[in-house]
Amino acid sequence: MSKKKMLSRVAEELVGQPMFGIMQRVIQMENEGYKITHLELGDPDFKAPENVISKVHNAMNNGMTHYAPSSGLPEFREAIKISCNQEFDLITKYEQVVVTPGANSGIYWVMRVLLNEGDEVLLPNPGFPSFFAAAKSTMARIKNYRLCEKNNFIPDIKEINEMITDKTKLIVLNSPSNPIGSVIPTEILFKIYKLAEEKNIYILSDDVYRRVSFSNNYTPSVIDFDSCNRRTIMLGSLSKEYSLTGFRLGYLIGPPEIIKKIGIYIETVNSCVPPFIQMGGVEALLGNQENRNKNLKEIIKRRDVMTSGLNSLKNISCHMPQGGLYVFPNISKTGLDCDEFFELILSKAKVACVPGNVFGEFGKNYVRFSLNVDVDIISKSIKQIEKSLKNYN
Amino acid sequence: MSKKKMLSRVAEELVGQPMFGIMQRVIQMENEGYKITHLELGDPDFKAPENVISKVHNAMNNGMTHYAPSSGLPEFREAIKISCNQEFDLITKYEQVVVTPGANSGIYWVMRVLLNEGDEVLLPNPGFPSFFAAAKSTMARIKNYRLCEKNNFIPDIKEINEMITDKTKLIVLNSPSNPIGSVIPTEILFKIYKLAEEKNIYILSDDVYRRVSFSNNYTPSVIDFDSCNRRTIMLGSLSKEYSLTGFRLGYLIGPPEIIKKIGIYIETVNSCVPPFIQMGGVEALLGNQENRNKNLKEIIKRRDVMTSGLNSLKNISCHMPQGGLYVFPNISKTGLDCDEFFELILSKAKVACVPGNVFGEFGKNYVRFSLNVDVDIISKSIKQIEKSLKNYN
Repeated sequence: MSKKKMLSRVAEELVGQPMFGIMQRVIQMENEGYKITHLELGDPDFKAPENVISKVHNAMNNGMTHYAPSSGLPEFREAIKISCNQEFDLITKYEQVVVTPGANSGIYWVMRVLLNEGDEVLLPNPGFPSFFAAAKSTMARIKNYRLCEKNNFIPDIKEINEMITDKTKLIVLNSPSNPIGSVIPTEILFKIYKLAEEKNIYILSDDVYRRVSFSNNYTPSVIDFDSCNRRTIMLGSLSKEYSLTGFRLGYLIGPPEIIKKIGIYIETVNSCVPPFIQMGGVEALLGNQENRNKNLKEIIKRRDVMTSGLNSLKNISCHMPQGGLYVFPNISKTGLDCDEFFELILSKAKVACVPGNVFGEFGKNYVRFSLNVDVDIISKSIKQIEKSLKNYN
Repeated sequence: MSKKKMLSRVAEELVGQPMFGIMQRVIQMENEGYKITHLELGDPDFKAPENVISKVHNAMNNGMTHYAPSSGLPEFREAIKISCNQEFDLITKYEQVVVTPGANSGIYWVMRVLLNEGDEVLLPNPGFPSFFAAAKSTMARIKNYRLCEKNNFIPDIKEINEMITDKTKLIVLNSPSNPIGSVIPTEILFKIYKLAEEKNIYILSDDVYRRVSFSNNYTPSVIDFDSCNRRTIMLGSLSKEYSLTGFRLGYLIGPPEIIKKIGIYIETVNSCVPPFIQMGGVEALLGNQENRNKNLKEIIKRRDVMTSGLNSLKNISCHMPQGGLYVFPNISKTGLDCDEFFELILSKAKVACVPGNVFGEFGKNYVRFSLNVDVDIISKSIKQIEKSLKNYN
């Protein structure tokens, strides 16, 4: 009878993470019998640390299998506070920390509690697609600030300034960046912070790669300027730095009134994060860090082999990442667009990457490779890619 | 400078689960040094099954610690399909099943993909507060249909019919009910289904207590009429029936176009549910059911002791639950309102319950006790409650 539209407008707008669409295409190849080298998802082949697994197991055996407080186990919130203090000199109150089921959901909650339909949010482009998907699901208006290769993929403060209107509520920063690996220098972070202060705008700082930084120097973050007290909100995760992607352990640190609202949101939607997993998180953050340090060294080795390998290929040039799990070579001179490049090396070289336009229109001259496999496999993959490009040329 | 409102309208509207507020009050008592019997949260003292814990541990050790497909591990989706077929003769396609991080989030996703601001949703009252919180967070208009004691807490089809307008998009059913334990008979379910069909309305059937049913007869559900193919969406959970509350394992079965959208939503927000936990879910659903059957028998014993104990108290009368984990006595004749009753027995008898108004205004003459502890402790608690009421009278 009725002709009423049955799905909500938000449902019609939903875009999801295009990354998962890429995964489907790759799985299809595998179902056809091909052995694929997976350099698409940001998920290195490292095992989850044994001390974390055993802590999770103990917690399950000790009856930590019931509901936990929505904002996080006190032990884990405290561990996050301590660990951020040790690593970044960040001094926060316990009430400023909320545990989230993965960092990805943290992005969503921040946008949900800040953005109304029609509000404006500034996102990096190329940038992590979840920023875009989460913003879209709030019906906010998205404005993309460009990360330009000729500017070392650093945000242009003038461009950001011009984008800001009365409706701008939130700027998202991500340093070290996914997909690029670029790190925003302190002086630029400070200018963005001052601008946000002047215009009364919040800043979500996606710091999930801050501990996967390749420099011996301090890696700055915009949260350094107000310790997440007034307008900066830090997004943290144990996925990348501790090889715990499947554990879905993330957190937010921010102004108490925002963190409290997010806690209520998590209460409404997720009830809580499994307490035994949170106990694993305590062990990861405060226990032995050997595994993490070993893996970071390994990632740096992989980055070196990957970038020099890619730079040795005709018509490909690759910026040197300063942090993160990715390299983001410019492939525009091959004459292929990023989708064609993705398809070619998937079908010919059996190597899966991510077309750069997944990260926004300004990523279209690039593809992203994740540092998921050891240097031998990376070297072999580079050779396969070289061969497939030769056949194409 | 700017006077713009910094939080979103949704954030201002957020109510959370009042249950967690009750928990805070109870924890406060404990911090003051009192030993409290916890009959507030629906979380019995059963241990998580050993076979499930050991499966989770094995999956972690076997490297299932990476990202998993957003809509759920194929193994777990398949297990859900098989298990619902075995228990309820439900025949569904794989694409109709999506895994959620707990049933609570399933409620939220369904409402998010169906409801726009101003759309109308019909909720049971007294009813599970998450229905209300999730609906409110979509800015939908909530209409409460009453579950009335003189009608055995069964929905009144005439009342529901009169509530429906052109804007009604969703009716939520919950049988066996939280907080009441009432089961809606097939003939009423069928009438509601026909009405929904005539008016083109979706039905969310919260079936999380369907396997915690005390009758030897088949426990019907509204999903029986269309097998979740057209307008019914089943909400399932492993929390209650398998004593896995802290594992956050839920699922939805529904029309493919809705399930697909919800999968994209989960992809956007949560990325995935931890794969090693899902492997535990496979074991729970398809492995040895002894633990579950033993616990169900124990719950029935507890219900009997609890209801007869409460009915032996002056001025208290308790309806006999047919399923679920709760009893919901009428306390109006004590002369106390539900908040006063809660406070009195918390402070005097050191027993924590939930004031009935947490479940909506029509719950205000009741309180809810969860069947969390063994019959000895229940008996002692009843005596303590009796004493505290005597001192009051």
